Amino acid sequence: MEEVFVVNGVRKDELLPAFNDDHGGVIVELKEPMDSNNFRSRLRASLFQWKLQGKKGVWIKIPIGLVNLVETAVKEGFWYHHAEPDYLMLVNWIPVIDNTIPANATHRVSIGAIIVNDKRELLVVQEKNGKLKGKGIWKIPTGVIEQGEDIFAGAIREVKEETGVDTEFVELLAFRQMHKALFGKSDLLFLCMLRPLSYKIQKQDLEIEAAQWMPLEEYAAQPFTQKHGLYKYINDLCLAKLDGSYAGFTPRPVTSIFSDSISYLYVNKQDLNCRIFSLN
Amino acid sequence: MEEVFVVNGVRKDELLPAFNDDHGGVIVELKEPMDSNNFRSRLRASLFQWKLQGKKGVWIKIPIGLVNLVETAVKEGFWYHHAEPDYLMLVNWIPVIDNTIPANATHRVSIGAIIVNDKRELLVVQEKNGKLKGKGIWKIPTGVIEQGEDIFAGAIREVKEETGVDTEFVELLAFRQMHKALFGKSDLLFLCMLRPLSYKIQKQDLEIEAAQWMPLEEYAAQPFTQKHGLYKYINDLCLAKLDGSYAGFTPRPVTSIFSDSISYLYVNKQDLNCRIFSLN
Repeated sequence: MEEVFVVNGVRKDELLPAFNDDHGGVIVELKEPMDSNNFRSRLRASLFQWKLQGKKGVWIKIPIGLVNLVETAVKEGFWYHHAEPDYLMLVNWIPVIDNTIPANATHRVSIGAIIVNDKRELLVVQEKNGKLKGKGIWKIPTGVIEQGEDIFAGAIREVKEETGVDTEFVELLAFRQMHKALFGKSDLLFLCMLRPLSYKIQKQDLEIEAAQWMPLEEYAAQPFTQKHGLYKYINDLCLAKLDGSYAGFTPRPVTSIFSDSISYLYVNKQDLNCRIFSLN
Repeated sequence: MEEVFVVNGVRKDELLPAFNDDHGGVIVELKEPMDSNNFRSRLRASLFQWKLQGKKGVWIKIPIGLVNLVETAVKEGFWYHHAEPDYLMLVNWIPVIDNTIPANATHRVSIGAIIVNDKRELLVVQEKNGKLKGKGIWKIPTGVIEQGEDIFAGAIREVKEETGVDTEFVELLAFRQMHKALFGKSDLLFLCMLRPLSYKIQKQDLEIEAAQWMPLEEYAAQPFTQKHGLYKYINDLCLAKLDGSYAGFTPRPVTSIFSDSISYLYVNKQDLNCRIFSLN
């Protein structure tokens, strides 16, 4: 009998299907609809088992179609870890101490695109929404990186979407980390220098009020640019790159044991090559 | 009567309390307990009003204590935007087209700390969990930045926690963007060079199997370092910094109109100063 019945009359083959993670915990991905009473007994019996097995973190992924089970999971002691449009991930930590549950994603990644043509004009826009709306301030195109998108690719995409201009990636000049940007999350803004491959502007209507090529001096002379550190730095970086020998970071492909996809390491290629050449 | 009753018998003063966001939408933060039937009628009436008012995005923040209302919100057409341990944020887009709902946070931010003492020994650890567990591989200390933490501060904290060594921040040498790292989210790993201020190692027991100062040549000679791009780059960067003139990025404080807290812009200070000095 002990082989078949575990607890509360739940059979072993009714325990929630779970697989192990790399950190001594288990992951349950609910897929089949069930009523919340059935879920409650199966969850209790499963938790009992996992505790006996010395499991630590317990993850339950509930697709939005099974939203009827969320309340039960919370009442059984689970809390939210993260959510995406189509699912909610809940978590529970069985041991009394040493909670090492990894944090949810903490940052949004955005890009600012610095694009200068051969007349020393900067590609700038005015936005229809947000804090700069209706203020007549010209700024570089900015946008948010999509899930799974590389920074250099996102920069090229955003510029094309907002202004119609084709570009290629040159270098990452700087980045800014800002906290409490959106729902308490932080923002990493990567300032990318791109080279224009086309010049005709065709602005996007939804988000962009106006777009133009603007002489760098005019951009720099805006009171707003003078006043705000980041906008002033953008001008300085631009000049340092155009007239000086400023070295930013360049992406180079690297493999990883933690992911199947190609990752990119952004390094100061110039200085790294210097050293490697000097040794060879 | 039109002044008092809006729809479905819900009085105007029973509409859900909402405030406007910067993008033509409204935000509801539920705080008072209510039963799900009451919530349903109030939500329907409120949606009717917001539609008349031309509102776009509707956000509902439900604390975990009011989990009984989640199912109702989903059944009324809302979906998940993000979740933190103590709340779930749902969203709905009233217009038929042009959904511009900002994405959830997409990246976790981690640091890798490169610390060399004056005997050219690198501070390295072996981890108790994860993919490298039990493989005897020496690697630099790494860790995840906490919500709201600056990269340079997180690097110093992680090294102290894992090894007991006190350090100060020198420079950001490179960073890597990797996709599908954790729950489909991406990871940004910032490789920071730190200067040791103390040398005695006191390892943390929970996550660290062993820690030591290891001659750079020995680190480089590990077959694992040879094989994996990132680990090899760490060695190259280390040598370029120690023996060459590699310039990474340094944090400089900047203010922002989008946040009250101080942000940091990471720039190649060396090259930026060059230009500024040469102009003055």
